[in-house]
Amino acid sequence: MKKVMIIAASDSDLPVMEEAGKVLEEFGVGYEMTISSAHRSPERTKELVEKARRDGVKVIIAGAGLSAHLAGSLAAEFPLPVIGVPLQSGVLNGIDALLSTMQMPPGIPVATVAINGARNAGILAVQILATSDKGLEEKLVGYKKRLAEGVEEKARKLENDQ
Amino acid sequence: MKKVMIIAASDSDLPVMEEAGKVLEEFGVGYEMTISSAHRSPERTKELVEKARRDGVKVIIAGAGLSAHLAGSLAAEFPLPVIGVPLQSGVLNGIDALLSTMQMPPGIPVATVAINGARNAGILAVQILATSDKGLEEKLVGYKKRLAEGVEEKARKLENDQ
Amino acid sequence: MKKVMIIAASDSDLPVMEEAGKVLEEFGVGYEMTISSAHRSPERTKELVEKARRDGVKVIIAGAGLSAHLAGSLAAEFPLPVIGVPLQSGVLNGIDALLSTMQMPPGIPVATVAINGARNAGILAVQILATSDKGLEEKLVGYKKRLAEGVEEKARKLENDQ
Amino acid sequence: MKKVMIIAASDSDLPVMEEAGKVLEEFGVGYEMTISSAHRSPERTKELVEKARRDGVKVIIAGAGLSAHLAGSLAAEFPLPVIGVPLQSGVLNGIDALLSTMQMPPGIPVATVAINGARNAGILAVQILATSDKGLEEKLVGYKKRLAEGVEEKARKLENDQ
Amino acid sequence: MKKVMIIAASDSDLPVMEEAGKVLEEFGVGYEMTISSAHRSPERTKELVEKARRDGVKVIIAGAGLSAHLAGSLAAEFPLPVIGVPLQSGVLNGIDALLSTMQMPPGIPVATVAINGARNAGILAVQILATSDKGLEEKLVGYKKRLAEGVEEKARKLENDQ
Amino acid sequence: MKKVMIIAASDSDLPVMEEAGKVLEEFGVGYEMTISSAHRSPERTKELVEKARRDGVKVIIAGAGLSAHLAGSLAAEFPLPVIGVPLQSGVLNGIDALLSTMQMPPGIPVATVAINGARNAGILAVQILATSDKGLEEKLVGYKKRLAEGVEEKARKLENDQ
Amino acid sequence: MKKVMIIAASDSDLPVMEEAGKVLEEFGVGYEMTISSAHRSPERTKELVEKARRDGVKVIIAGAGLSAHLAGSLAAEFPLPVIGVPLQSGVLNGIDALLSTMQMPPGIPVATVAINGARNAGILAVQILATSDKGLEEKLVGYKKRLAEGVEEKARKLENDQ
Amino acid sequence: MKKVMIIAASDSDLPVMEEAGKVLEEFGVGYEMTISSAHRSPERTKELVEKARRDGVKVIIAGAGLSAHLAGSLAAEFPLPVIGVPLQSGVLNGIDALLSTMQMPPGIPVATVAINGARNAGILAVQILATSDKGLEEKLVGYKKRLAEGVEEKARKLENDQ
Repeated sequence: MKKVMIIAASDSDLPVMEEAGKVLEEFGVGYEMTISSAHRSPERTKELVEKARRDGVKVIIAGAGLSAHLAGSLAAEFPLPVIGVPLQSGVLNGIDALLSTMQMPPGIPVATVAINGARNAGILAVQILATSDKGLEEKLVGYKKRLAEGVEEKARKLENDQ
Repeated sequence: MKKVMIIAASDSDLPVMEEAGKVLEEFGVGYEMTISSAHRSPERTKELVEKARRDGVKVIIAGAGLSAHLAGSLAAEFPLPVIGVPLQSGVLNGIDALLSTMQMPPGIPVATVAINGARNAGILAVQILATSDKGLEEKLVGYKKRLAEGVEEKARKLENDQ
Repeated sequence: MKKVMIIAASDSDLPVMEEAGKVLEEFGVGYEMTISSAHRSPERTKELVEKARRDGVKVIIAGAGLSAHLAGSLAAEFPLPVIGVPLQSGVLNGIDALLSTMQMPPGIPVATVAINGARNAGILAVQILATSDKGLEEKLVGYKKRLAEGVEEKARKLENDQ
Repeated sequence: MKKVMIIAASDSDLPVMEEAGKVLEEFGVGYEMTISSAHRSPERTKELVEKARRDGVKVIIAGAGLSAHLAGSLAAEFPLPVIGVPLQSGVLNGIDALLSTMQMPPGIPVATVAINGARNAGILAVQILATSDKGLEEKLVGYKKRLAEGVEEKARKLENDQ
Repeated sequence: MKKVMIIAASDSDLPVMEEAGKVLEEFGVGYEMTISSAHRSPERTKELVEKARRDGVKVIIAGAGLSAHLAGSLAAEFPLPVIGVPLQSGVLNGIDALLSTMQMPPGIPVATVAINGARNAGILAVQILATSDKGLEEKLVGYKKRLAEGVEEKARKLENDQ
Repeated sequence: MKKVMIIAASDSDLPVMEEAGKVLEEFGVGYEMTISSAHRSPERTKELVEKARRDGVKVIIAGAGLSAHLAGSLAAEFPLPVIGVPLQSGVLNGIDALLSTMQMPPGIPVATVAINGARNAGILAVQILATSDKGLEEKLVGYKKRLAEGVEEKARKLENDQ
Repeated sequence: MKKVMIIAASDSDLPVMEEAGKVLEEFGVGYEMTISSAHRSPERTKELVEKARRDGVKVIIAGAGLSAHLAGSLAAEFPLPVIGVPLQSGVLNGIDALLSTMQMPPGIPVATVAINGARNAGILAVQILATSDKGLEEKLVGYKKRLAEGVEEKARKLENDQ
Repeated sequence: MKKVMIIAASDSDLPVMEEAGKVLEEFGVGYEMTISSAHRSPERTKELVEKARRDGVKVIIAGAGLSAHLAGSLAAEFPLPVIGVPLQSGVLNGIDALLSTMQMPPGIPVATVAINGARNAGILAVQILATSDKGLEEKLVGYKKRLAEGVEEKARKLENDQ
């Protein structure tokens, strides 16, 4: 069952957004990934929300650049969490996408992660699903432990090199 | 006949957006003014575009703050010009609204004016209508002349005071 | 049962952060609210995560200003979702808090909402819990409907006034 | 008949500004394209407005970088719509051009599009002309439809690849 | 003889720009002060340059806010130094005016001072005239000395208070 | 006689700052060019001002990056005009140098030009000297004319290519 | 014995800079406080460094706004630590002072604290002196403890109020 | 004896942070260098502070990018000076790291140097140790002298080339 839907605003955004999918696979979370634009295909964007609701999707991850409206458009229709990934595109380094994604008005939140932070969007989706899934929660505890061990290993290597 | 539709994202934006309406009245251009939010009332926003098309509206002016998606949402559906007014609201002085409104992706332009520039949005709407209305064009020429005379009068007053 | 823990970095941040609590009450979600600083009381911050884990807290909401490390510190320890509210404090209008909260490195996401967006942080927490609670999901659907109706009512009032 | 005049501030801006011309050709709108600088050739800039008025030009598109005064200078003289394209040039990524173009004082609007958004400037010019040209309006409706179909096609391809 | 011309873009800018005039009076430099807008009265702005040239004006000081084109427009026509004062006006604290005034293209410099720095614009004008006026140069040396003495006096007072 | 002194904060800044020297040569203005740092060689910086005064230098041009204090340090000691060129160096694209150079306190102006605008610094120096040198003034009028002709020639070429 | 010298760039900066003095008094560290400007009194600024060296001062704290060169000027001459406090003054909220103070070139560091962070500048001075003073180090450990207790007390009070 | 501990947030930050170590070696100051992340290895970060205290470390230098919490986390626990190096990483050029490192709340200072300013962090550490070490102080005086001589030598070379 596909609990997460990942939507990129354009096919040029796929290389970044695929990071979100990879994390979900690492955690064994089913997802589907597609493309839709808030501006070029508003009808499709709306239909994807309806599809997500029919399919039992619990979290939508949306990545867009420039005047990044995609996450906000989805959040306007979808009652469950929408995670927004502001993408670096164009000349402003993603600051436009950051503010367009994050500064949502009261009533319609978008859970925003770092610019190009698709990997963290995937982890956040896992964390959200883990609020009702002990198995996932334990995997996250293990993941945190491995992150720490990774740092320790690099530190040991550095200290040995000195 | 109402050739311009002015949409404010919230009733708290009306005091600024009414400036657009005042200019249209000065130029004798019919308009209607209403409220809709891209995020809180997406369905209504979509219906307003359909209404605008049915009523023969030629230009939509949209004002919104924060992650200002309203103008972009309208531009996604409306084939004629959409003018966006980024509004100062919240703590970022309208820079969030500016970038959300202006940095539209290729294919879907929003004609963006200055932050809180509702008066200029009204004038731009008149200029657009004047491309096929000689009477309006002449009024605009007269308006420019009066702007210059206003400056000259103030200059004369200042010079007399010195 | 208290499924959400709200942590303000200082008592001066409470007036903003209480908005998150109010939303949780509107949706009938139990929460506890307290104060801790990543910098002035790091030990307490760490203990709060342990307490949250013992008490079965599912989501932590953290609000801080300036070099806002609170949400990130909590996310470093807590395996479930941490929502960060960048607070306007000091002279930079919350831009420092925004970047400190949102630009988290790969592996440790913080779900960031708008500057001072405590109300949206509360709604996002409800959305997260609703991924496994049909009752809450229905309440959110109802909430969205009421938001749209609120806009429509204001629009009707405006149109009647014209 | 040439209804649109495109003016680049310098010949180094032509590669970007030519995108505006391409769009006009796609829609069958006649245009002329030339170069003038608000600062290096103010006289020529003024004369171009007079020529535009004589020739029946309905919309001017101006692209400039740095302290981008070109669109504003033209708007000071031309009574019909002036579209400004802030160009990325120099070290500030076009933010200087953006603010120089968009933050016009009350009375003299410039319809500003995204940084380097020459393509959208062309589409906006078509939209303006379409307010009095049913044929162009229908082409724009078709264009929007093709944009949506383009997204759908890419989405289908992505889904097939999965 | 009036060697300096001060031009404010609008009468609302006079309170700041008068600081430039006060400095010129302190140094006994003749000046005239007037109002003209690059956008609302382009013809007048051009004529002021011609008048300045006829009257033997050596330096023009121009203050404007928003898309501050005034100094640049004058510099496009005037071959001698133009000093630009970016004014805080509107919601962006003068950053728009700063970039519009200072980021001039090669060939047409504007000598830009701090935002609202009209007093320094006046001093800079005196410095420019002092390059060929020994009396003014000596006054400037004396002025620098008095600035230093003012600091020393305040320091003494503070030290006595401790 | 050397009427202009050009000071670069470091030898790595020379390639940009040499543009100022080239302009002075084009106009036949004598200059000397050297290196000094406000931070690494404060004593030398102070001595250069004394040397400049002894040699009859009328204008100092200073170029520095990062916390660009060079122009301000010189302006603190030199009573005649100091032109500051903020240089792009380090990771902030020269915005740090821009603000460090331009936002001088009342009493000590720096005539700031665009980031990396060494060429315009040279022209501004010529303009300053031209306030008491009719020959230079005429050269500047000629220079402006050639700038305009350069634009016109490029425009003709473009129009012929179409 | 006065181990710390606090220098404010102007008497208007004293109310903020006095916070540094208060902290030093709390920790029993002798200091002197005075005024000097890098730009208006460069000679005095240089002499203060010489005085500081003669008096055995170990740390200088400097607070300035705008193009804040004071800390950098002192660091150019003083071989021991200089702490810089960027002050909010003028219209840019201290961002100009921040970059002018912090972006120092290799070789001449300034230990920069937050905008208006005079209190933290005082604590940092104590920390520096504590590197060779066990008594001060213990006081700092106690201070950290009291900060944590202060947070805990406020948290208890909040929890009791709920 | 190792008086300085250098901590990089990740091994990818080592090339920049090693500059701090090189300076310490030039001045004959013992140091150790390791890796730890405030977010991925919070436990290790805390233990490093305890180790630093046991080993008699007097100064910690911490370098991190993005939401750079490392220096602040260390400062929350370590009573002696913590120097923060904001690192350029990700798409925002280190502005996120700058604000995350420098805008610390009252009570917990971080001595912040320029973005990527690891070399200056090393010098600042030497300066701090020199407050109780006459030998180091003399070396710093010599270092300043050599910096000035380096500038003079380059200036001589430039002048000879002219």
